[in-house]
Amino acid sequence: MTFSRDFIEDPNRSQRTGLDEAIFCQAKTAPQIARIAAQIAENGRRALFTRLTREQYSELPEEIRSLLDYDELSQTGLIGTAAEKLRTDLVAVVSGGTSDASVVGEAVKTLEYYGVEAGVFQDIGVAGLWRLTDSLESLKKFPVIIAVAGMDAALPTVLGGLVSSIVIAVPTSVGYGVSKGGSAALNSLLSSCVPGIVVVNIDNGFGAACAAVRILNKFRRSQLTVY
Amino acid sequence: MTFSRDFIEDPNRSQRTGLDEAIFCQAKTAPQIARIAAQIAENGRRALFTRLTREQYSELPEEIRSLLDYDELSQTGLIGTAAEKLRTDLVAVVSGGTSDASVVGEAVKTLEYYGVEAGVFQDIGVAGLWRLTDSLESLKKFPVIIAVAGMDAALPTVLGGLVSSIVIAVPTSVGYGVSKGGSAALNSLLSSCVPGIVVVNIDNGFGAACAAVRILNKFRRSQLTVY
Amino acid sequence: MTFSRDFIEDPNRSQRTGLDEAIFCQAKTAPQIARIAAQIAENGRRALFTRLTREQYSELPEEIRSLLDYDELSQTGLIGTAAEKLRTDLVAVVSGGTSDASVVGEAVKTLEYYGVEAGVFQDIGVAGLWRLTDSLESLKKFPVIIAVAGMDAALPTVLGGLVSSIVIAVPTSVGYGVSKGGSAALNSLLSSCVPGIVVVNIDNGFGAACAAVRILNKFRRSQLTVY
Amino acid sequence: MTFSRDFIEDPNRSQRTGLDEAIFCQAKTAPQIARIAAQIAENGRRALFTRLTREQYSELPEEIRSLLDYDELSQTGLIGTAAEKLRTDLVAVVSGGTSDASVVGEAVKTLEYYGVEAGVFQDIGVAGLWRLTDSLESLKKFPVIIAVAGMDAALPTVLGGLVSSIVIAVPTSVGYGVSKGGSAALNSLLSSCVPGIVVVNIDNGFGAACAAVRILNKFRRSQLTVY
Amino acid sequence: MTFSRDFIEDPNRSQRTGLDEAIFCQAKTAPQIARIAAQIAENGRRALFTRLTREQYSELPEEIRSLLDYDELSQTGLIGTAAEKLRTDLVAVVSGGTSDASVVGEAVKTLEYYGVEAGVFQDIGVAGLWRLTDSLESLKKFPVIIAVAGMDAALPTVLGGLVSSIVIAVPTSVGYGVSKGGSAALNSLLSSCVPGIVVVNIDNGFGAACAAVRILNKFRRSQLTVY
Amino acid sequence: MTFSRDFIEDPNRSQRTGLDEAIFCQAKTAPQIARIAAQIAENGRRALFTRLTREQYSELPEEIRSLLDYDELSQTGLIGTAAEKLRTDLVAVVSGGTSDASVVGEAVKTLEYYGVEAGVFQDIGVAGLWRLTDSLESLKKFPVIIAVAGMDAALPTVLGGLVSSIVIAVPTSVGYGVSKGGSAALNSLLSSCVPGIVVVNIDNGFGAACAAVRILNKFRRSQLTVY
Amino acid sequence: MTFSRDFIEDPNRSQRTGLDEAIFCQAKTAPQIARIAAQIAENGRRALFTRLTREQYSELPEEIRSLLDYDELSQTGLIGTAAEKLRTDLVAVVSGGTSDASVVGEAVKTLEYYGVEAGVFQDIGVAGLWRLTDSLESLKKFPVIIAVAGMDAALPTVLGGLVSSIVIAVPTSVGYGVSKGGSAALNSLLSSCVPGIVVVNIDNGFGAACAAVRILNKFRRSQLTVY
Amino acid sequence: MTFSRDFIEDPNRSQRTGLDEAIFCQAKTAPQIARIAAQIAENGRRALFTRLTREQYSELPEEIRSLLDYDELSQTGLIGTAAEKLRTDLVAVVSGGTSDASVVGEAVKTLEYYGVEAGVFQDIGVAGLWRLTDSLESLKKFPVIIAVAGMDAALPTVLGGLVSSIVIAVPTSVGYGVSKGGSAALNSLLSSCVPGIVVVNIDNGFGAACAAVRILNKFRRSQLTVY
Repeated sequence: MTFSRDFIEDPNRSQRTGLDEAIFCQAKTAPQIARIAAQIAENGRRALFTRLTREQYSELPEEIRSLLDYDELSQTGLIGTAAEKLRTDLVAVVSGGTSDASVVGEAVKTLEYYGVEAGVFQDIGVAGLWRLTDSLESLKKFPVIIAVAGMDAALPTVLGGLVSSIVIAVPTSVGYGVSKGGSAALNSLLSSCVPGIVVVNIDNGFGAACAAVRILNKFRRSQLTVY
Repeated sequence: MTFSRDFIEDPNRSQRTGLDEAIFCQAKTAPQIARIAAQIAENGRRALFTRLTREQYSELPEEIRSLLDYDELSQTGLIGTAAEKLRTDLVAVVSGGTSDASVVGEAVKTLEYYGVEAGVFQDIGVAGLWRLTDSLESLKKFPVIIAVAGMDAALPTVLGGLVSSIVIAVPTSVGYGVSKGGSAALNSLLSSCVPGIVVVNIDNGFGAACAAVRILNKFRRSQLTVY
Repeated sequence: MTFSRDFIEDPNRSQRTGLDEAIFCQAKTAPQIARIAAQIAENGRRALFTRLTREQYSELPEEIRSLLDYDELSQTGLIGTAAEKLRTDLVAVVSGGTSDASVVGEAVKTLEYYGVEAGVFQDIGVAGLWRLTDSLESLKKFPVIIAVAGMDAALPTVLGGLVSSIVIAVPTSVGYGVSKGGSAALNSLLSSCVPGIVVVNIDNGFGAACAAVRILNKFRRSQLTVY
Repeated sequence: MTFSRDFIEDPNRSQRTGLDEAIFCQAKTAPQIARIAAQIAENGRRALFTRLTREQYSELPEEIRSLLDYDELSQTGLIGTAAEKLRTDLVAVVSGGTSDASVVGEAVKTLEYYGVEAGVFQDIGVAGLWRLTDSLESLKKFPVIIAVAGMDAALPTVLGGLVSSIVIAVPTSVGYGVSKGGSAALNSLLSSCVPGIVVVNIDNGFGAACAAVRILNKFRRSQLTVY
Repeated sequence: MTFSRDFIEDPNRSQRTGLDEAIFCQAKTAPQIARIAAQIAENGRRALFTRLTREQYSELPEEIRSLLDYDELSQTGLIGTAAEKLRTDLVAVVSGGTSDASVVGEAVKTLEYYGVEAGVFQDIGVAGLWRLTDSLESLKKFPVIIAVAGMDAALPTVLGGLVSSIVIAVPTSVGYGVSKGGSAALNSLLSSCVPGIVVVNIDNGFGAACAAVRILNKFRRSQLTVY
Repeated sequence: MTFSRDFIEDPNRSQRTGLDEAIFCQAKTAPQIARIAAQIAENGRRALFTRLTREQYSELPEEIRSLLDYDELSQTGLIGTAAEKLRTDLVAVVSGGTSDASVVGEAVKTLEYYGVEAGVFQDIGVAGLWRLTDSLESLKKFPVIIAVAGMDAALPTVLGGLVSSIVIAVPTSVGYGVSKGGSAALNSLLSSCVPGIVVVNIDNGFGAACAAVRILNKFRRSQLTVY
Repeated sequence: MTFSRDFIEDPNRSQRTGLDEAIFCQAKTAPQIARIAAQIAENGRRALFTRLTREQYSELPEEIRSLLDYDELSQTGLIGTAAEKLRTDLVAVVSGGTSDASVVGEAVKTLEYYGVEAGVFQDIGVAGLWRLTDSLESLKKFPVIIAVAGMDAALPTVLGGLVSSIVIAVPTSVGYGVSKGGSAALNSLLSSCVPGIVVVNIDNGFGAACAAVRILNKFRRSQLTVY
Repeated sequence: MTFSRDFIEDPNRSQRTGLDEAIFCQAKTAPQIARIAAQIAENGRRALFTRLTREQYSELPEEIRSLLDYDELSQTGLIGTAAEKLRTDLVAVVSGGTSDASVVGEAVKTLEYYGVEAGVFQDIGVAGLWRLTDSLESLKKFPVIIAVAGMDAALPTVLGGLVSSIVIAVPTSVGYGVSKGGSAALNSLLSSCVPGIVVVNIDNGFGAACAAVRILNKFRRSQLTVY
């Protein structure tokens, strides 16, 4: 079964929201992904493909694979030109442990797509608190911090009590038993005793990066000297 | 049973995080609240009391009640002087329906505490989409929008697809059946198909306002012309 | 272990309910499916097989496979003759995104089985609201709309507030984190702030189509010459 | 705290969707309900108020109470004129047991608002199957059946296998232990082995009635002279 | 890592409880299963192995496999001699649909182990109520009925309202969406509006059969003329 | 709102199932209960009313209250004559602790209704294992044991491993934290490592007693010498 | 309904386990509690009553109330003589915030019952990390630390990474939205990235204290110089 | 995508907490694990790797595999020298059944890492209570008992009522239906009616062993004659 049209581009989304349309690949067949990629390339547009697994990527036709700049760890692919020069010192991405690296990667790649080079601080979970406090002065320089953490997800809370930066917390699905799937981390973050921490879906490095871009865009665009 | 000390003030929290300590009153007894309020007043500090129910308030001693500027709808109380002049056009608070008013109120009162007068747009849920689109041009002027919505919580998603503002979504516990308690709204928001929407705990108008203040503070403080 | 009889046909179901018996293949072994298919074919009846995976299909004996008109995307198979001429303009099937295509497919194939050609509108999720509003005039012509949506499942709600059609909503299991498995979508739909939207089980395109057929049958049968 | 405006009427909703705006009273304060009722009465419009508890009703000012035709069992109130002559033989409302009467009542009152007099069949749960089979011939005459059932919610399934009518199932929150709150009933209904049964939120008699009205309206409007 | 002893036989369990020890194979490695089987065979005892998957079975050493009378559908294996002559007319095993066959099989094989030949009535789910009523007179002859049903699990409830037999209900994990895993079926059964239905764990055909054996044993052993 | 008829008696239920119709009072209004009680009394029948709270009972008209033999602890009421002479030594009701007394009471009262005097063994939870082992010889004499237990619900499991009696387990809702509501107890019982234990809904002493009556009836009625 | 005996004392529990029997009052009626208290007093024994609410206490007969040393905050009552001289420096009880005081109280009172005076450190949650680090040297002196925390429950984790003491974590039910009831705190603690933290049920200050007593008892009793 | 640094050693963790840093391998790629192992070996340190699956292990480069003393059953690997002489009679590890062996193994291997040889008592679940009571005198000699149990997890409760030892309970994920994943076991343990039992995450043999080491360390280090 095929449908006459299975994808409608939203070309002015960027104009409306400051964010381009991205292609979420989960539950899409390789032919569907290929048709979408071909259409975007044909129109000369850029797009980020997320949740593109190694299996899906390898089933794509060679000519589509050659269009995509694919990264396996973050399961992202880029069609179109990369941002030429990356702005730094705006967004940090921190994580509790190495097991969170794929989510960190998705955030970093999404930020790159929007021309932002993230400062990355991995494996600074609170089990060894000094790892966080040692990084604190560096971290304070970033107006926006994406904090990736699984299991008890204590890192974003502790961090949020020490800095005035905007903290966007990303729970991860790492763990077993009650940690499995990430709901313990998610609920811990939503329950944070530190006010002003905001949260996105489990493993949603992409969404956290988009939120960061919304923040950066808004202040750039509106030329605000806020007050 | 009483303890020698049941509250330790955190006076330099504002310096660290840009946000003052607030007093969360749920599960506190009236005597505990009274002791905390007295201590803050004695030290000449300001503080916001949240989740202060009508019952708790009425059990406080008269001298404490007279210190508190109490608002029943939002269940907030203020000790200390209010912000003198409120900055406008920075944060909008929108809601799907009148039943969300207490959460809207908590956000508005928290913003007031930090010197921000919110633009309030109530009852613009997507069941009557024109109510949202009619407000759209006004809403676009606000760099930060706190979107309060219960049940299906479709409002923040639809809004987020139409504006480039930062959208901080607050699910509410309004509803019955599967809506009861707000987890349907929460999960709907975390699952939003519009990228870059961030979420706080159910009914957490206070937290959403604090996140808005973090954003406003950071850009003011760092004197950033972002790029 | 085999049982003397593992399937009892319900030949007068159509007479009772207006809907034929369909064969739900999940958790059935290939030999069980083959025996059922052979029996139906022998009796010269038609039947729709649902949830028939590629793996199950490939394990069927060749003579059974040749009886079945199998569609992989929708995981459906048909035994017996297809409806000759399809009635149109009665049921639309809309979806939020391409990832919902298999569920759309199951609904479309089921409708075909009952002689109804669905109007298909894919990828009109509310993240790009214009895609929905552009289709609105076309959609209003359909008395019944099956609305397939995962994650926040905002599409059926927004649609339901804009049309007077009957909206049968199908949540899908697409997504990760809290969206995984579809309960966020399901609960969002059950909580819809637009009245009169009805819901079926997650991914149940078959059930939604059957509900549409119940509606069409009832009015046709009662001499209301719907078509 | 009061807001300048806490309710925006949606007067053309009926034109768009065939259903008037209704006022959901849960989590609204008495003053909010009173302001809304006064505004509707002033504009000379009709409206149904749902989930209006005895407590809320008794806190309304006398002049508002006199405007409302209030029914305690169904927790509904009507502002404006009732439908003059009710159409019959279109919708039946059946229930498993007397404990479901308030949900039955909400459906019946909503249908009345739209000019439909429901046939009511209470206490015909499947524990005494003959009570259902005895009513079967009568039930078959109704093109739409709203089936209200709690606990195991087997009634709508058994009914749906015996009639060709459209079955809109309403799970109820009656019961204790795993039945408490109604999720067992809801999930049982969504899992129904009888195809084409559609479901609304737990205890949502209002929504089921609105879905019935959508069906009746659509066929009437499209010149299919349903009645 | 191996432990000096990883299994302690409970040889007098039968004497205490009337039921032999059975070997639950889930999460056991093939070497562990082999050691247990060898020990039982060596002691000249009988034992039923449950949840023994095709994969586990095929990894067992040939000499162990030859000891086991293995049945793939029910995932059971028998060590020792089968019961010579089976008693009939005591226990019926009924199921809603063919997809429940493996659970039916586990119950049947367990009963066989205890010398009881079950009457099997498959695919008599309530979607076609006549299939149940047609079997009713036969079913009434069995003092104990094991009723296996997934999804809405309405069969045991309807059956329980029609017979005076003891009904032991077994929910199954068949289904998708809210049916997945069987908790909808389980909760539906625990909520049954028909009194006196008892329930075992999801897919636990073994446990249901053991309960039946407890009932049969008790009345045989105590030579009770109940009253 | 009142309905012409809100209760349909099922007078031949006893003949079909061996169990009379009982009146479940939760979510029924006092007038509904009164009408049902009056009708039963008028017809000269007996009936057990369950979940009849002190509040409901006290709202009944005096003439109805005088008809009902009401017991507050078990929340049961009896209309009609009690069983004259009770048979003993058939069913024991055991409980883990005094907090389970209301559930024990419901089982005991239901058994009394059917002419069975239960042996009651309260507060023999496994925290003091000797309390169970001291009662063991007495308990073994009962062919059916209803085991009531909350929290970890270990009692029915330990008991089931020591006796050959039929064990019907009733989880209770006693406890706090994860024990609250009884699902921990329920799931523990469904997971019992002792085979052949059957389970009813949380707090369902009534259902457990009915299951016991089904067992006793079946063997009495069929004059079975089982084998 | 009353039972001949509703409480069986377990007088040698202390000898077996080192812990006396305690009376859990939830779901017990005032008469039941009174009977138990009278029996204990008559036997000249000591006992701790837990979860004894103000309401239950006030319904007790005066002569029983005079026997009980009741503390409202911790909902505990003591029958018998208090420990004469309390040992110190063994157990600390720390909490995240004042809202956790009742749980802290239950732990403190239970320890007192066993002759241990706890060091209490309230309101040292990680939102103001300095409050924890300022107390660190004092805390390190205690071999056992009971850490009480609700919401995100980050305190026990951070503490556990800084001290070598045994950390027994008690999640609390304080909070709203996803924090409500304490499962977020519980799961966060079970997921702690700091190894060797043990957990008890939500709000179970009593259980945590008992675990501490087990630890202290064992080492005292066995005269271990551990190695 | 690779990051400049994906692991920060915490070398003084042992000094702070008495426990070395361990490497949790779930969700880590083979290259990440290899880099961490190489770094630890280079620094001449010891480390325990947990949750290291056979698949991950086999993907490691040969030179890393040769560094690791790998045990498949427990999924642990050791880098560095093993403890020379193991202390005995301090910690017992007991389990309900053979299916729990991998969790038992993880606890045993972790204890070995810290120089403690556990006494192992497998398959002593309460279904055959004599297996526990037979081992009781031996078990009482151990000051700390790690009790591993799945499904109903009754073993730690029964054991805890019979010994004065410290009982650290580990729920396991063994089972199907409601037992699947281990939450039934976990909640049963948290609800234990025996006071003073502490719990760790599902399948967390590692954490239980670490808790035991905290206890042993604390008493050794502080040279406490407790009182």
